Amino acid sequence: METIYDKVVLTIKQYNMIEPDELVIVGVSGGPDSIAMLHILARLQKGIGFKLHVAHLDHSFRGKQAEDEAIWVKSIAESWGITCTLAKQDVSALAKEKRISTQDAGHLARKDFFLSLLEKMGAQKLALGHQANDQAETMLMHFLTGAGSEGLSGILPRQGPFIRPLLFVERAEIEKYCLDHNLDPRRDPSNEKDIYLRNKIRNQLLPWLTENINPNLINTLNRTSQIFLFQEQYLQAKTNKAALKCILQEEQGTKIILESFSKLPLALQRRLIRSAYQTVGKKQGIQFKHVEEVRELLLNKQVGKVLHLPDDIKVIKEYESVVFYRGDRHEYNVAIKKRVITVPGDIAIPEIGQIIKTGYTDRLPEEIPKNEVYLPWEEFSPPLYVRSRLEGDKFSPYGYNKSRKLKEYFIDKKIPRKIRDSIPVITDQKGIMWIAGMDFGMRVNKKSRLNKYVVIKIEKEH
Amino acid sequence: METIYDKVVLTIKQYNMIEPDELVIVGVSGGPDSIAMLHILARLQKGIGFKLHVAHLDHSFRGKQAEDEAIWVKSIAESWGITCTLAKQDVSALAKEKRISTQDAGHLARKDFFLSLLEKMGAQKLALGHQANDQAETMLMHFLTGAGSEGLSGILPRQGPFIRPLLFVERAEIEKYCLDHNLDPRRDPSNEKDIYLRNKIRNQLLPWLTENINPNLINTLNRTSQIFLFQEQYLQAKTNKAALKCILQEEQGTKIILESFSKLPLALQRRLIRSAYQTVGKKQGIQFKHVEEVRELLLNKQVGKVLHLPDDIKVIKEYESVVFYRGDRHEYNVAIKKRVITVPGDIAIPEIGQIIKTGYTDRLPEEIPKNEVYLPWEEFSPPLYVRSRLEGDKFSPYGYNKSRKLKEYFIDKKIPRKIRDSIPVITDQKGIMWIAGMDFGMRVNKKSRLNKYVVIKIEKEH
Repeated sequence: METIYDKVVLTIKQYNMIEPDELVIVGVSGGPDSIAMLHILARLQKGIGFKLHVAHLDHSFRGKQAEDEAIWVKSIAESWGITCTLAKQDVSALAKEKRISTQDAGHLARKDFFLSLLEKMGAQKLALGHQANDQAETMLMHFLTGAGSEGLSGILPRQGPFIRPLLFVERAEIEKYCLDHNLDPRRDPSNEKDIYLRNKIRNQLLPWLTENINPNLINTLNRTSQIFLFQEQYLQAKTNKAALKCILQEEQGTKIILESFSKLPLALQRRLIRSAYQTVGKKQGIQFKHVEEVRELLLNKQVGKVLHLPDDIKVIKEYESVVFYRGDRHEYNVAIKKRVITVPGDIAIPEIGQIIKTGYTDRLPEEIPKNEVYLPWEEFSPPLYVRSRLEGDKFSPYGYNKSRKLKEYFIDKKIPRKIRDSIPVITDQKGIMWIAGMDFGMRVNKKSRLNKYVVIKIEKEH
Repeated sequence: METIYDKVVLTIKQYNMIEPDELVIVGVSGGPDSIAMLHILARLQKGIGFKLHVAHLDHSFRGKQAEDEAIWVKSIAESWGITCTLAKQDVSALAKEKRISTQDAGHLARKDFFLSLLEKMGAQKLALGHQANDQAETMLMHFLTGAGSEGLSGILPRQGPFIRPLLFVERAEIEKYCLDHNLDPRRDPSNEKDIYLRNKIRNQLLPWLTENINPNLINTLNRTSQIFLFQEQYLQAKTNKAALKCILQEEQGTKIILESFSKLPLALQRRLIRSAYQTVGKKQGIQFKHVEEVRELLLNKQVGKVLHLPDDIKVIKEYESVVFYRGDRHEYNVAIKKRVITVPGDIAIPEIGQIIKTGYTDRLPEEIPKNEVYLPWEEFSPPLYVRSRLEGDKFSPYGYNKSRKLKEYFIDKKIPRKIRDSIPVITDQKGIMWIAGMDFGMRVNKKSRLNKYVVIKIEKEH
């Protein structure tokens, strides 16, 4: 049987974890995993020729006891000839401030501490003490709370600067190593309690499963994570390739092109939606049910429909695409399809969530609201159309003698470029009659000789 | 919320389970699942326009009680206007005979019964009562005992003639349906015991997980199975495509071509090995560790090495391939690489598991064994070679005056074509000297004028 030392050497080699001359920061809590890892890396140091530095964060959970532990970690490191950075953060306060669990806050605090130290010291790698039992727990947790291939890849052996040399070593082997080398690690008593899901899995579920279902469970789950890790890499490469054809990143958001998308197999469609979401939203924000909702939107739903996804991301269906964007729909520059306006009648413009209502009237009101316009019957050439602005559009605003460029008009009125396409332009056969909600052409709102008007009103869709 | 009836209709539609005019055999144990399924299918029958027939197998576990149940199933079916076939098999005896668990024997007996009835009646489909809880149990079982994508696809909604219309309905919904429709199903008391892994998972693990980890676990695991089902379809399609380039099915076995194989991503390499194995071995025979052994053999190990896999399958490494075959290595026609024979010395020919031993001697023995040959020192032109027969090979067997074709010689000697390549041919610079273990050329075994011989011996490798 391989010793834990041999296993770690093999893992470092297989995943190219450490190159000669690199500076490796080792995250050391003081527990068995990180202390054993530090001991093994210290033994390996000369052979490979890298440098070590220890980083320890006091979470301010346990007062004096934790402070003593920090000093102990520093003294151990220094006795092995390794420099050490100690830091302290009030993780409970951070949890309150961010409204997250103390576990998540601890994770966040450590990550920030490690990354900033990495940058400050110009280090290449950061070694973390996750081991095979952590992996098995993670796999169980992901499986039991819902996971695809990505979740079942578990904890990654290497991920950017983070390396996990102990990932294929079981806790029992680490305990034995500590005993054999008189390492006397510190034990965090909070690990013994069933407060968190992970601890429930560690202290109750895993032992029961190992006794009743599969004595070799830790190994089995680690092997499963390896299968899925490589499968995931393959599928992600295929997804990235498909994304080149299907996904456009535009100023207005991330667009999935329906034509290329609909030709993909279902498995890739789902991954592509996830990828598109992640260009604008959080990595973990989208769940399977959301993916299916977007897929249905893409393949079936009417143009203009908007889905609300987690992390304030919205998806709007356009004619040949869906667009993922963050924030308000009206900040979003959506093009309006050209349509004939029938009078009288209501025409929905779902792209912008508005309705154009038309009718006849025989009198002009005293004051005309901004969202209405009156066209003298004899002054226009039907049919009327609604559409987005076009390159080269000109019109004669009421009160002007000559026509001007619509583009310049928008600039004068300080209309942000990104919403210009979503302003409906109403035209007849001869040209622009109304910039909906804004201004109207010279042929509009004149007194009608025939006393007959077409009235157009634009309203929000409900 | 959807009723169970609506869910079943949707499932049948989504997976194209039943076409009009088909004859659907329904496997009915008499338990809640199968009775509810039969009731729902009977209600659906007219709308879709298919025919039903009930099949019930008595496993001979529970004597009179089980016989009464069979009669009860028949009477229920007939009261709903559905014909019924009853059968009985001694499953315990079958288990003993096949040396399998009674659970596996029950599975086998039902499958045989269903398939033969399907054929006899010319039915198109066979409906089975697996539901969402069965699916969750299967998913857990596969995950906890080691599974890749295929295992995590779980129970398939449709698989050849087998359909599972209840697969997305939970047990509790089925119980409620039975109650609402006064179905009064029979309950098999063996389900309550913890004898089997599945029952342990059903009665202990699932309830604990649902209470402590994820109240929505049944749903979560069913959703996971759907993710993996479609991902698996995609990956299998990619594997099949890669197999066109990498896998050859030949008389001698199934060959994986190294050159095309080595260019594939790891995830496909693993799947390809599994596929190649399955062309000669059992579907479930190969495990992850075997796949990795074959992969190592393909990419690293020496030519001629043989791996033994489950179900009496062997894999031999050739120069540019590995070959999966069943049975004995000597039945298998492997080519021998051309090598120089150094004298004295031993040369292993791992392709055929034999060793050629050479040395010098100054006398001929009285009787020369079949596996030895003596070359008079002055009669041959070194170096000596060993190789497979070549197209156009000729030689002059001892006792013949003229040379003859090796091919005709093999035919005369009735050597099966499939082993001809694995017979070592020993040559010098001028031509064939010995067909190892068979016959020798005219220049061999002559009395040496110099009283000096090279002796060549061929032996099995140990």
